[in-house]
Amino acid sequence: MVSRQSTRLTSATPAIADAHFRAEAQPYDRQRRPDGYLNLGTAENRLLWDTLHDRVARLTPMTEQTTRYAPLHGTPELREWIAALLSTSCQTLLHPDELVVISGATGALDAIATALCDPGEAIVVPAPYYGAFDTDLAGRSGARIIPAPLRADNGFRLDAAAVDRALTEARAQGEAVRAVALSSPSNPVGEVHTPETLTALLRVVRAHDVDLITDEIYAHATFGDRPFTSLVDPAVNPDWADRTHLVWGFAKDFGLPGLKAGVLHTRHPDVLTAARALAYFAPVSTATQDLLAQLLADPAWVTAFLAEGRRRLAASYAHATALLDTHAIPYAPAEGGFSVWLDLSRWTGPAWQGEERLWRGLFESARVSILPGSAFHSPHPGWFRMCHTMDAELVTEAVRRTAAHLAHAPADESGAPV
Amino acid sequence: MVSRQSTRLTSATPAIADAHFRAEAQPYDRQRRPDGYLNLGTAENRLLWDTLHDRVARLTPMTEQTTRYAPLHGTPELREWIAALLSTSCQTLLHPDELVVISGATGALDAIATALCDPGEAIVVPAPYYGAFDTDLAGRSGARIIPAPLRADNGFRLDAAAVDRALTEARAQGEAVRAVALSSPSNPVGEVHTPETLTALLRVVRAHDVDLITDEIYAHATFGDRPFTSLVDPAVNPDWADRTHLVWGFAKDFGLPGLKAGVLHTRHPDVLTAARALAYFAPVSTATQDLLAQLLADPAWVTAFLAEGRRRLAASYAHATALLDTHAIPYAPAEGGFSVWLDLSRWTGPAWQGEERLWRGLFESARVSILPGSAFHSPHPGWFRMCHTMDAELVTEAVRRTAAHLAHAPADESGAPV
Repeated sequence: MVSRQSTRLTSATPAIADAHFRAEAQPYDRQRRPDGYLNLGTAENRLLWDTLHDRVARLTPMTEQTTRYAPLHGTPELREWIAALLSTSCQTLLHPDELVVISGATGALDAIATALCDPGEAIVVPAPYYGAFDTDLAGRSGARIIPAPLRADNGFRLDAAAVDRALTEARAQGEAVRAVALSSPSNPVGEVHTPETLTALLRVVRAHDVDLITDEIYAHATFGDRPFTSLVDPAVNPDWADRTHLVWGFAKDFGLPGLKAGVLHTRHPDVLTAARALAYFAPVSTATQDLLAQLLADPAWVTAFLAEGRRRLAASYAHATALLDTHAIPYAPAEGGFSVWLDLSRWTGPAWQGEERLWRGLFESARVSILPGSAFHSPHPGWFRMCHTMDAELVTEAVRRTAAHLAHAPADESGAPV
Repeated sequence: MVSRQSTRLTSATPAIADAHFRAEAQPYDRQRRPDGYLNLGTAENRLLWDTLHDRVARLTPMTEQTTRYAPLHGTPELREWIAALLSTSCQTLLHPDELVVISGATGALDAIATALCDPGEAIVVPAPYYGAFDTDLAGRSGARIIPAPLRADNGFRLDAAAVDRALTEARAQGEAVRAVALSSPSNPVGEVHTPETLTALLRVVRAHDVDLITDEIYAHATFGDRPFTSLVDPAVNPDWADRTHLVWGFAKDFGLPGLKAGVLHTRHPDVLTAARALAYFAPVSTATQDLLAQLLADPAWVTAFLAEGRRRLAASYAHATALLDTHAIPYAPAEGGFSVWLDLSRWTGPAWQGEERLWRGLFESARVSILPGSAFHSPHPGWFRMCHTMDAELVTEAVRRTAAHLAHAPADESGAPV
């Protein structure tokens, strides 16, 4: 009855969305629902609203001009302000005409994948990776994702050699690889990549003559000692700029995921033309664009807001990891993002069934929603993504429940980490 | 460099959008730019803002809940209020769970075409038709549009026999036709279809076993004696309900085109599942959904607003047609929509070059932007769509300029209408 192209989509609903809405339907409340779900599965930043609230309340309401048709790849005002913001974080001048505003980072990823790939062509992605890439990059475009597995023994740090191997093997098998895509800072690991790693990655991408898609939606959500380096920064990318395509949005850095305001930056004229044509199908409400442009038009407020966001993120991470340390739950250290990448392989054993069993146990019995590594195409079982950007009490309760559940979970016989 | 699937899109930018932005860049102003462009090419309703303004100013600002992730096919609140509104205009109970809120009517049309068609499959559309259907229905889905030509001698009224002929011929040529699509009320003609015509159309659609896509975005924008009948109204559609898919949005009836808030209604479970999966790529900002839900949550205001809109539309149409009568410019009578479908065939002659020449002359010399019939796949040259839903002074000036231009345009030698 329905088309084959839509059937492909319906068979691939992201597990992330499903767990989110189940957990949200019966949330924990210390007084009223102490046995409710603790949703640490969704990368939402719940730490920011009080710093946004006053500024939002002072916004000018929609005008007649706002209600009218506007360029479907974003209003000039919003693109100018986004260009100014990202020119700072990317350390290079981004032109407003190189930006395409589109419905969410999802829309931006779909647009760049569709612009670059025909159905069946491939995108190599270092794994573990943000699970929704499967839908965002491959769902409508028809592209295929080929994971480049990273190594568990160094906490899944980005490794250009792993990407090189995946590209070489894919080519050897006759795959038409068009691009490499990654989250930077990484998700789920939360690594802020070093300039050396990024330089090495660009060398690989250039050697294989493929485009690079860099999802920098967590660009301002860093808290470690290492400053964020964009992949479009000329310091690491002096000569692959027009083959490097940047995705950003307001969901993470500004804590506004519901507004579905994403942006694609590209310097390649043909890709830009294609992305604008694709934005026609997924434009952002002018009312929302106006709201966001008004926020960005107050750079002093933006600077203070983002700095406060980073302070709170650092405190939240420190709180979460201190709890994990107390309960002797191992994890890979993070310098960015909203989550901690937990190593629970001691409790899952070396098989995917063990990971699945522990995930279900935590969700159904402990009523803690954290996402299993399989949702991120982790190359090794036993890892879980735990988001911590919410009320500290909820994180405390979630780690307490998790530790209690693990105390009763059957440990791997060998006792050794995978 | 870019994919074939995106190249297909970039070669088909709608002429409507192009003319709109050129004309908007240098608009007419009686004092400051008396030789500026008069944009009567874009179907924007500029008659409503003063009735919206106060209500918009009283809306509650965005809350924390609004900023969060919400179901990507629309918030429950907005879907409930849209269901209530459309249940009245459609004369049948629409369930909120059968609705998919998506980025604009464009998004809704793209979703239903993609859900029904695989690339190369066909949709039959009575012509002339809304030109952006070429992109909306066929651009990303890969479907092909087959026009079913209507007759000039009765002003291009909808004719089920013409649709029947097109379906029969397409099938005979081996086309895989999946659906018939149309605007109701029609665009560019502005016909409010009779129940008899709709019943006949449904008989044809059913006989050919194809789905029906009905774009009812002008459902509340009627002003003639004939009440609007929806194609999902059981009075005309007693037994094809789950094969009939309705598109609506806030662009026309509410005069809010910039907000890109569209909706698809379908009763077919597989189509609904597919449409929800497609809405993932083009969701509407929760801030905008909240704004629209707040408007609809005041049904007394909505009823008064829509009634006042219809009164103003009727007055605007009466004003425009009185001017056309004065200048002896013929047109097909309308009962809905924002435009008048002008018959300028006397001045274009019987060839498409004549229509193109007159269109360019009006745009470049008279600086009046109205769209040529070719942009609507008119089966006969010489017709133009003139939108009138704006300040009456602008319409007066535009008709004056048009008449003056026509007075100097070379008439068809035969002097006879095509």
